[in-house]
Formats: sequence, structure tokens, C-alpha cells
Amino acid sequence: MVDAKGLSRRRASRQRQFLDVAGVSEAGEKFRSCIRMEPLGTETLALADALNRVISDDVVAAVDVPAFDRTNVDGFAVRAADTAGAGEDAPRTLALNDEVITPGVVPRVAVAAGTATVVATGGMMPRGADAVVMVEHTDIVEMDGRESLQVRHPVAAGAFITFAGTDIGRGETVLRTGRRLTSREIGVLAAIGRESVPVYRRPRVAVISTGDEIVPPGRELRAGGVYDSNQAIISAAVEELGGEAVRLGVVADDARQVEEILRRGLDCDMVILSGGTSKGAGDLCYEVVSRLRNPGVLVHGVAIKPGKPLCLAVSDGKPVVILPGFPTSAIFTFHRFVAPVLRVLGGAGEDDNETVRATLATRVNSERGRTEFKLVNLVDSDHGLAAYPIGKGSGAVTSFSHADGFIVIPAQQEQVPAGEPVTVQLISRRLEPADLVAIGSHCVGLDRLLGRLQREGFDTKAMNVGSTGGLTAARRRECDIAGIHLMDPETGEYNRPFLEEGLELVTGYRRLQGVVFREDDSRFAGMTTAQQAVEAALGDPDCVMVNRNVGSGTRILIDGLLNGRQPPGYAVQTKSHNAVATAVTQGRADWGVAIDTVARDYGLGFVPLREEHYDFVIPRGRRDRRAVRRFVELLQDDAVRRELEELGFRV
Amino acid sequence: MVDAKGLSRRRASRQRQFLDVAGVSEAGEKFRSCIRMEPLGTETLALADALNRVISDDVVAAVDVPAFDRTNVDGFAVRAADTAGAGEDAPRTLALNDEVITPGVVPRVAVAAGTATVVATGGMMPRGADAVVMVEHTDIVEMDGRESLQVRHPVAAGAFITFAGTDIGRGETVLRTGRRLTSREIGVLAAIGRESVPVYRRPRVAVISTGDEIVPPGRELRAGGVYDSNQAIISAAVEELGGEAVRLGVVADDARQVEEILRRGLDCDMVILSGGTSKGAGDLCYEVVSRLRNPGVLVHGVAIKPGKPLCLAVSDGKPVVILPGFPTSAIFTFHRFVAPVLRVLGGAGEDDNETVRATLATRVNSERGRTEFKLVNLVDSDHGLAAYPIGKGSGAVTSFSHADGFIVIPAQQEQVPAGEPVTVQLISRRLEPADLVAIGSHCVGLDRLLGRLQREGFDTKAMNVGSTGGLTAARRRECDIAGIHLMDPETGEYNRPFLEEGLELVTGYRRLQGVVFREDDSRFAGMTTAQQAVEAALGDPDCVMVNRNVGSGTRILIDGLLNGRQPPGYAVQTKSHNAVATAVTQGRADWGVAIDTVARDYGLGFVPLREEHYDFVIPRGRRDRRAVRRFVELLQDDAVRRELEELGFRV
Repeated sequence: MVDAKGLSRRRASRQRQFLDVAGVSEAGEKFRSCIRMEPLGTETLALADALNRVISDDVVAAVDVPAFDRTNVDGFAVRAADTAGAGEDAPRTLALNDEVITPGVVPRVAVAAGTATVVATGGMMPRGADAVVMVEHTDIVEMDGRESLQVRHPVAAGAFITFAGTDIGRGETVLRTGRRLTSREIGVLAAIGRESVPVYRRPRVAVISTGDEIVPPGRELRAGGVYDSNQAIISAAVEELGGEAVRLGVVADDARQVEEILRRGLDCDMVILSGGTSKGAGDLCYEVVSRLRNPGVLVHGVAIKPGKPLCLAVSDGKPVVILPGFPTSAIFTFHRFVAPVLRVLGGAGEDDNETVRATLATRVNSERGRTEFKLVNLVDSDHGLAAYPIGKGSGAVTSFSHADGFIVIPAQQEQVPAGEPVTVQLISRRLEPADLVAIGSHCVGLDRLLGRLQREGFDTKAMNVGSTGGLTAARRRECDIAGIHLMDPETGEYNRPFLEEGLELVTGYRRLQGVVFREDDSRFAGMTTAQQAVEAALGDPDCVMVNRNVGSGTRILIDGLLNGRQPPGYAVQTKSHNAVATAVTQGRADWGVAIDTVARDYGLGFVPLREEHYDFVIPRGRRDRRAVRRFVELLQDDAVRRELEELGFRV
Repeated sequence: MVDAKGLSRRRASRQRQFLDVAGVSEAGEKFRSCIRMEPLGTETLALADALNRVISDDVVAAVDVPAFDRTNVDGFAVRAADTAGAGEDAPRTLALNDEVITPGVVPRVAVAAGTATVVATGGMMPRGADAVVMVEHTDIVEMDGRESLQVRHPVAAGAFITFAGTDIGRGETVLRTGRRLTSREIGVLAAIGRESVPVYRRPRVAVISTGDEIVPPGRELRAGGVYDSNQAIISAAVEELGGEAVRLGVVADDARQVEEILRRGLDCDMVILSGGTSKGAGDLCYEVVSRLRNPGVLVHGVAIKPGKPLCLAVSDGKPVVILPGFPTSAIFTFHRFVAPVLRVLGGAGEDDNETVRATLATRVNSERGRTEFKLVNLVDSDHGLAAYPIGKGSGAVTSFSHADGFIVIPAQQEQVPAGEPVTVQLISRRLEPADLVAIGSHCVGLDRLLGRLQREGFDTKAMNVGSTGGLTAARRRECDIAGIHLMDPETGEYNRPFLEEGLELVTGYRRLQGVVFREDDSRFAGMTTAQQAVEAALGDPDCVMVNRNVGSGTRILIDGLLNGRQPPGYAVQTKSHNAVATAVTQGRADWGVAIDTVARDYGLGFVPLREEHYDFVIPRGRRDRRAVRRFVELLQDDAVRRELEELGFRV
């Protein structure tokens, strides 16, 4: 019982720690005020190594580009006045000077009135000449034993010449400090003869994961273990921001080990720890970091959701940050508080954000008192962008990875209604509209079809919001296809009865729903129908079910089987066939309803309930999009149909 | 005279070569039809090395994430039913089970009705429990010598639990083939325990520059020499597209040397040569490449501008390309014909283009019979985007590097009028709107001011279109500031007389215009006024001037000095002070008009003509933009004013 008391004590100490929970802007300012917000230093790199680096000094051209008046065609350098009045029937005759100017050759002879010099494209214009006649507009004729030039078109002064310094003039600032070097800037540097370029040095950032439960990827996952995703994602994000990540690995919840690794991390320019979870490891990291001085911990606890347990410290000018352990919290707080500092230390501008306007597709509730960041997916609708809030919580690593951006809900606001215009902060530097957006019910078969499209070069985006949500999205013209499996209780017919004006139905495939249970569960031995299996389950008060979310087609089937009864586990609403299978496999529940494909994949027992139709609703006008046409073709493709059959679907 | 004949012969052979000039789509199709348009191969990389690579196989999760039902808060695992009716005044009392579930701990005891187990955030839910009560809503009380839990709030089933597999379900396809790996995808891979990932191998591309006149950056530029920018820019572009550039250096116009380096290049997956110019080196490269077989040269000459001399070949499945030597032509044809192939060989989709709609700001003429690509700068106006054609030709390396995108003018169209809506193909994957757009007259002083802003983190964009063009842009509200120096001939007053309703004038600085000449030119010895110097020049019929472009403020001064006379060189219209100074320095001309700052920089003689006012026009409403406010502040800043004075400006 000491442990329960311990929990209470921890709770008290935690409340003390977070007593001074900081506002979002306040926290950031406090942190930055203790850091020298300027680039760490510079280095000089060969041009070939400088791609994507940030230039640390203005570059002034020491030469003109081109360095001489250059001819842009093959032909003859002339005085334009000598060609005045020339025509097909009245050519002007010029004497040829005794030299040929190919690129790299320096002219020796000036072009006097009545003369011309042979020049090739890229060659240097001789003095005296002020235009070039294209070779196509001339003839060489023999007169008096000498070859002469006949010009059949007049040219204006300056014709076919690029004057020296018109591309880049000596003394011109060609690139300015702070510019990120793309191929284009590198080309300019080469053009003015630079073989190297001064750039800001990359900040070295130590990245550490902590927690007894954290398992490095590649190892076997023990019971209760969690793979370390924070180290990988934060390290990669550091590199995307122009830093160099130093991956220091995973340490257990042990103060001595955390202290040791923190000391190693302080050899870098910045240290980022993340606690395995907001509790436990996080507290331990705080304990160790709180011993840092000059000035040490600045902020512990920020009024932000997700991300409250964030700790910001500075030790002898080096930022030391403890990110929350849950992935989405970690990445949010990293981008909000750490990324701007990293950008400045690396010489890029602080601000690199882009926003778009969108309409919120569904209502969002928010906790009063904390600034809330809500991830959203963006889809093109006929009325501009629609923002779909992402339901998964701060523990979900997929939330951030599937999101296009996020909205910020002020601390005092409790709700944002559907249909409200919102400003979405993009996560990538630019919004990448998908070629095909699928919103609706999740299905492994649909997954395969989208995988096919993706391999063919189409960018697809899938949002699993259930059949009803998919139908709504199609009605609002926010998706290209909506996978649905909805039965009309009146007629028993699937999907078609739910269509409206402006929506089209494309036949998908059929899949078999049924009751799933562990193979060795004797309570379900010998059952042949789903109803039998359910009655057997309900006969044992210790037999726990796992339910599905309201709005899913499967939930309708479950409620039909139960007919008003609510056995243990009824309130546990999972969101996918996979989650149902997992719960049963792990023994948290004993039965649920899922499709046979998934049952087979998890090695579960299965008794069929009914075959249902999984079809696709397509808003009118979307059918002609290239990706949609291809999707419909794939549904008819023999190889694809065989693949679906192998997965257990009927086509 | 043999050389003139040689030129004629070359012309004839050239016309033969280009007899079958291919259309743009035809050329691309012919090229691609001889290449296996699929990824070259795959390799497996550690996650830490996989950033920005393209995944070569669908990744299916082998585990559930989370792998167990996880608690999201610190508290107590309970049966929700046991908390029904609980309140501050009516707590429900539960017995505490004898275990504490911190992260990583596997529960041993099931939560029976009337009991609760201590759980910490991230911990595994014990069987039997279906909800978590937050520690904040509980008290530990001692009853009958045992500690018990009092629950002061009811919870619903599922509260504060993330069910296993709800983030990622086992069997779910988490990433699909062809996806580029950002930090977000890498985080997902780590979360499912992957330490490595299969990716497409990067195509190795040999990059070679040829031409007698081509000088590698870093070497001294000999007379008539041109720095090699194509190798740097093409290599960097290859890397941006996910390839590996193998820089093979510069070779002279020598068939044996070109052949040898081509053979070395064929060890790579692709060879890109670029001729020093469209003539000369290009022909030689063609000669060498034309000996390749299986199938060898496919296209030589494409009806495209710029880029006509492009040569596309395939040798034993390996693409071999000769790009035109002029930088803009080289980069255009690279992006149009080579980049899509490179993307496919590297496993990324073929298509990676983005377009925006804009209004053409000024008229564009086009050559009939060739598809023309015209580079444009984009600026935000109050009526959407305006596209400014970039005047510099295909020889200009800065054209591409400063452009935002390009428009395509069909082969049959001769002109696109100003005001026409156009589709702009973006060059970068996204349009980066500048914080401050300056359109107008070029000035070294303005360059410095923009450099300052840039160092402070503002993104600036400058377009040098002359004073009149700047005024027009300001009137159309397409720029934030327009630097102008226009004198009203009636009053002699600068700039203010040209203002209109909706435009504001901010005082800039003054600069001294004058006549420039070579210090050692005795014709200008002892001159004290500009008019004197001009009269001296006009006294010698061999004395050549260099003019400025119509529309520039300087041109107005020149015409004033000449008063109707047109000495040799009058028709040569350069576009900047630098170009004037270069022409005089190199002896192509003997005098011109430029500002003293530039004269000093080039070490030229200078007699003053008049001091002029270089001020800034700001459209109303733009003045409040942060970058504009800062620009105006800088103009008043003491340090900046000193810097301008050191450059020779008067403030």
C-alpha cells in the first residue's frame, strides 16, 4: 500500500512542480531569453558539399557574367549600320576579316566599317562590331578571287549579343546571408567562379530516449514494452531543420544512467531528452535536469495540449529540453519550442511557418485553460479546403505523421463548431494535395487498392471515419471515394438506399463479418452461427466483449446480435477490426465482431454472421479524375480481384 | 578564308542534323521508350540513414501500436460500473489491489468488481478494468486499518484508455511503396519496431562539362573564358531529385578526350554532358555520342526554346544526354527531359509538377514554330498573382535561379498580351512568397538595404525593370517598394511629380551620375563637366559610347547630354550601371553614363553630371507590412546611412 501513498505523494509533488505552469508565449520567451539567439559559427565548404546549407555571408560577384560581350548565334560580327537596307534581292557585301572567333578565342582584329568577322555561338565580340548577323541570313561569295560576305537581312545594333555584366555585374550582391543553397544558388556561385562557400555550421543535437518500458527498434518487444519512436522522429526532424542529430540511445529510469548520458549530451550544442511517458521517466529526467545551473530549469509545465509536462532548461548557454514521452506531444512541443531555436542556431530564419484557411469539417471540443493544438487533415472540397480533426490522442505516433497541419484553440475556448473557418498551420512547408482522397470505413481490401495506386505514382490519402462519416464527406464533396458498408434495415439492401442526388455507387466487394474469439476458448467450441456464439458468451457473466464505435457498419451488426443486451465490455468502443482482434488475442476481451480476413490474420476462431457489401460512393464530377478512373479500373482488374480473393474477400 | 567556308559547311551539316527537329512530347516519348522506366534497384538502410530516401516496398505492421491497452493518465484502473453515481459528497469506495502498474510492468492481478489498481501514465491496463480514474479525482483513506480508494467522479467505460492497435493495427499497411521518407514516416517505422527500411537505390549520374572556353570555378578566368556553372547546377539538381552526382569535370573540345570521359561516365547509370555553347563543343559531343549504339542517338534537336540543340541518346539502356551549353537552356531541358526519367529510376513518381494561375504583367513575344518556355517571377498583387517575364536570355545563369516558374507558349502562338491569365509551372515544389518585393530601378544602395533585411530574416525579392516599370508595378500594387529616379523635365524635380493617388513616396538617398571612361584615355583628360566630356567624345568619330535601356532614368540623362546626336554605340542598350562600366573597362566602348559608386568600383575615370534622387514609392496599404516598416526604419538608421555614405551615396 506504500505505493498508493507514493502515488499520492508524487501527485502532490507534481502539483508543486506544475504550480507555475507557463503560458505558451511566456514559456518560449523565457527559454529564448537565456540562449544566444544567433548562429553558432561558420565553416567553408566546397560547392559540391554545400547543397541545402545556409550561406553565412553575402556573396559579391568579383567578375562580370558574361565576362565579355558574347555572341548568341553562329554568324558574323558586323557594324549594324553596314547592314541597313539589306534584303534578299539587295544583299550588302562585306569584306571578311582574317580571323575566326570560336568560344575561348580572343579577337585580335577590330571590325572596321565594311568588314565582318566569323563568330561562333558563345564567342567574344570583336571591338568595332555592334551586332551579329546569323549565318542563315548570309552567303559566302567569291569576288575578285577573294571570298566576301553577302548579308541578306539587316540587323539592329545589339542584335544577338549578350553584353558583359548583364547577367551578373561585378560588385553585385548575388546571394545574401541566410539563404538556403539549392541547385539554383549553387549554379550562380559557380558562374562567378566560386569553388567554395561560407556556410553556418550545423548545430549538433544530442537526442536521448528514457524509460524502463522503451525498447529500441529492431529488438524484440517484451510485454508492456513500447518501441522508441521519439528518438528516430526527433533526430530526423533535427536533420530536416539543418541540424546534426547525435543519437545517444535509450536509457532506463535510473538517475545515475540519465545523469551520465546527459553529461555526454552536453558535449553537443543542445540536448533533447524525451521521457518514456509523461509520468515516471519524465519525472526522473526532470530530477536530473533540475540539478543543472547557469541558469538551469526555466520552465516546467506549459499550458498547452498536448505537451503539458514539457521542461525547458539552459545550462551554460546550451538548451536542454525534456519533451513529453507520448509521440504527438513530443513532436508538437519540439516544433513549437525547439525548432525555432534550432533554426536560428543554424543560421536559418526563425520563422518558417505557413498557414492556409479552411473550414472545420467536424466539431472540436477543447479543454479550458490550456492552449490546444489539434491536428487536422486537409482535403479539397468544391468550396475550398476542409479540415478534418484527427481523432487519435497524443499517444498516437500516426497522428502527426498523417496530419497536414493543426489548428490552435485558445486557452479560453471550449469548442469550435463544425463549419467554422479556421487557420491551419501546415506541418510540411507546403500542402501536398493528394491525387485521391478516400474517406469512410476502413478496410484491408481498400488498403490494398490504395497501395496499388500509390505504386503507380498516385498520391493517396485515406481517412477512416466510418461508413456514415464517409457518406457525409461524399455529400459535402470532400472526398473522391467513400468506402461504405451500410445495410438498410427495412430492405436488407446494402449501400444503394443511402445514395443521394449527386452521388454515384461503384460496386466494391463483399466481406464476411462474424464473431471472433480465441481458438482455445471452450465456451465457443462447436458454434456454427454468430447468434449461437453470442448467446454462449452472454451465458457467462465473466465473458467480456469488445465493441465497435457508434457510426460504424459493424456496430449496427453487433447491436442486432445483442438486441438490447449490454454484456461486460459493451462500453469499450474500438475503432477498427484490428483493434477488436487485438483485444481478443490479448485476453482483454473474449469476443467481438470482425471480418474473417482479420480473424485469419490474428489466428482467431471465427463463426460467420453475414456477408456484407463494401462499395464505394463517388461524388459526381470526381469520377473523371485520373486517379479515380484508375481506381475503378483496378476494381475490375483480374489480378487485383484475385489478390482480394486471396485476402478473403468475394469479388 | 577556309574558316568562313568551314562555317558554311558546318551550317549545312547542322541543318542536316536538325532536319528532323522533334516536337517536345515526341522527343520525350522517343527517349523514354528506349529506357526501362522503372527503379534501378533497392537497398536496405538503417532508419538513421534513410531520411529523404524513397521506400521500395509496402511496410505492414507486424505489431499493434500501442501493443497493449494503455492508460493515458496517472490514476486507478477500475470497472466503470463501480464509479456510477460517485460525487464529491458521495464518493464510492474501492479496495486497492496489491500491485502498482508503472510503464513496462505486466499486471498480474485482475481488477474484480469493487477493486482498483494503481496505474501510471503509459502503464498497461489490467484485465477486468475498463476505465481509469484520474488520481486528481480520488483520495486514499484508511478504513479498518487498510488503505482504500475513494472515487469522487464517475467515469465512463473506456475513459483514459488507448486501446491496443488503435494507433496502428497489426497487418495494417503503414507506408506504401514510393513514399519519400520524412521525419514523420521514420517515426512510424520506429514505432512498429523497424530498425531498417528497404529503399530504392539512388541513380548514379555522371556530369561532364565540355568546351575549350570552360574554366572550372576556383581557377583564374582567362580572356574569353567562361566559368563552368552547368556542372555545379546539374549535379546539385541531380542530388535534389534523389540521384547521386558523379562530377567528372571539364574536358576541352577534343574528340579523344570527350570519348574517354564518356566511357568513364558509362560506368554510371546515366551520363549528362553539356556543351560549352550550343555550337562548337556541342557539335563535338554529338559526334562522339553519335557513335554509341543500341540504339544510340534518338533525338537531336527539339522544337523548344530555349534548348533546341538538345541531344537524347540511350546506350545499352543507359540514358546519355547532351544538354545545350547555355545555363538556362541546360537547366530547362534537364528539368523537362531528364528529371522525369531520373525520378522514375530512383523510385519517385514521374510527375512532380505544380502549377499556379497568374496574370501576365507584360507582353511576351514568342518565336513561331518552337514551343517556348518563358521564365517568370511571381508577385502577390491585390488581384492574385502577377507573372513578370524575366528578360535575360538563355545564356543567363541568374534567370533560372531568380525565377519562380515558367509559362509555356505553344509553337503556333507568336505573342501573349499583358493582362492575359497564364498557368505558371513552379520551379520549386512550392511558391515562397517574399516578405518584401522590390520592383524598379537597380541600385547598389538598395542592394545593401535588402541585404540587411535578409540578414534579419526577411525574405526579399528584387526585380530590376527600371524606374518606369517600377512605377507601373506600384500602381498595379504588385510590389511593396519601387526604387525610382525620375526627373520631371518641366520642374527638374525628382520622383514626387510622378506620384498618383494611392502611392506614397519615401525619401531614399541621392547618388551622383556622371560620364565614365578609362582613366588613361587622353581624350577625356582635364574634363570637369559631363557635357565637356561628351563633346570631346563626339569630336572623335572612333570614340564609341555604351547606352542604357529605354525606360531607365539614366537614359533620360544620356539623351539630354546628346541632344539628338547618335554617336557610335548609341544603339547598344545595356541594362545596368555595371554593364556600362564593364563595357568601358574592357574597351568595347569608350564612355557611358553611370553612378560614381560603380565608377569607383571598376576604377574608371568619372566627371559628375548631376546628383539625382533615388527614392522609394510604396503603394498605400503596403506600408504597414512588417518588412516594409523595417525597410523604412533602416533608411533612417545611422549605421545604415554611414554605410550608404561609404558607398558614395548622399543621405
